[in-house]
Amino acid sequence: MATTDKASPRDRLLEAAAELFYRDGVSIGVEALCRSAGVSKRSMYQLFGSKDEMLAASLERRRPWYEAQITPAGTMPATPRERIRYVFERIAEASVTPGYRGCPYLAVLVELKNPEHPASAVARVVKDRLRGFFREQAEQGGAADPEVLARQLMLVFDGASARAGARIERLDDGLAARTADALMDAAGMD
Amino acid sequence: MATTDKASPRDRLLEAAAELFYRDGVSIGVEALCRSAGVSKRSMYQLFGSKDEMLAASLERRRPWYEAQITPAGTMPATPRERIRYVFERIAEASVTPGYRGCPYLAVLVELKNPEHPASAVARVVKDRLRGFFREQAEQGGAADPEVLARQLMLVFDGASARAGARIERLDDGLAARTADALMDAAGMD
Repeated sequence: MATTDKASPRDRLLEAAAELFYRDGVSIGVEALCRSAGVSKRSMYQLFGSKDEMLAASLERRRPWYEAQITPAGTMPATPRERIRYVFERIAEASVTPGYRGCPYLAVLVELKNPEHPASAVARVVKDRLRGFFREQAEQGGAADPEVLARQLMLVFDGASARAGARIERLDDGLAARTADALMDAAGMD
Repeated sequence: MATTDKASPRDRLLEAAAELFYRDGVSIGVEALCRSAGVSKRSMYQLFGSKDEMLAASLERRRPWYEAQITPAGTMPATPRERIRYVFERIAEASVTPGYRGCPYLAVLVELKNPEHPASAVARVVKDRLRGFFREQAEQGGAADPEVLARQLMLVFDGASARAGARIERLDDGLAARTADALMDAAGMD
């Protein structure tokens, strides 16, 4: 998502925030963010009120893009099992790209250590929506306990993205999809 | 691990660092750390050279204690499957304590985003040792592919501790141990 000189100060700040928070962590300073966006600190505070609110807004803005990256749109793949596998195949692909640092929403939760932070609330929504997707597929695929299977798949998803993001695991041999398959089998899913 | 006035400046700094980095994250300032330890900044730099080295030293110092918390010592429980379950039962217990923020070593890797950092090296050792423990048990229990099973169990371990630490999952219903069991079954382990 390239920024151009024609983008508004608000858009430039949101883009810079999404990129720098992901690359360097939530402790990055307001000064560096504003410099990167080419926007004054005064304008930043006028637009967002605080760094915390800017972080939350940048995560919320990336949400549709992020979700489109990892969950299937439309009717393909067709079976619930394949639709779940799709998610794990996408993170395997992403995990070998140079700038990969894992799921940005989990990272923000780990870094902030504060469930009350406005950005934590955005991150929780993203996590809940993915769990909801898994649960829906698990139900359609006839899993014995769709809610438990969805929670198990979230453990694998967040563990895989955190470990690959930290460069202590590689997912390109299909480890995460294979793990998801074993759990779908155990739950009696088609 | 309480600190006393009789502890050396070095020990006081390492204890304060371990506690504050875990509670507030690696971006906490040197000033706050030194204040909490009751040690001058000058002494801190004389003892450790840099904040990065102090962080690494504090993680290294906690390592034996941390490993004793989550892995079985001695010969009980007796079976490989029970020894693996033991690890997941310990994080389920820890996850419902008030100050729980997940695995401190994974958190440091997620926060630092830098595999070259001296603290990342310590964290990798801890993660490798746990994977080694899982692998050893998987071999003894007759798993079809002990290395793959060990890596799968690490996904579950890190996903479970990150999610529980971020307060987006509860492990006290046995979710993580149940997930580990399903994967051990799938690997044909006794």
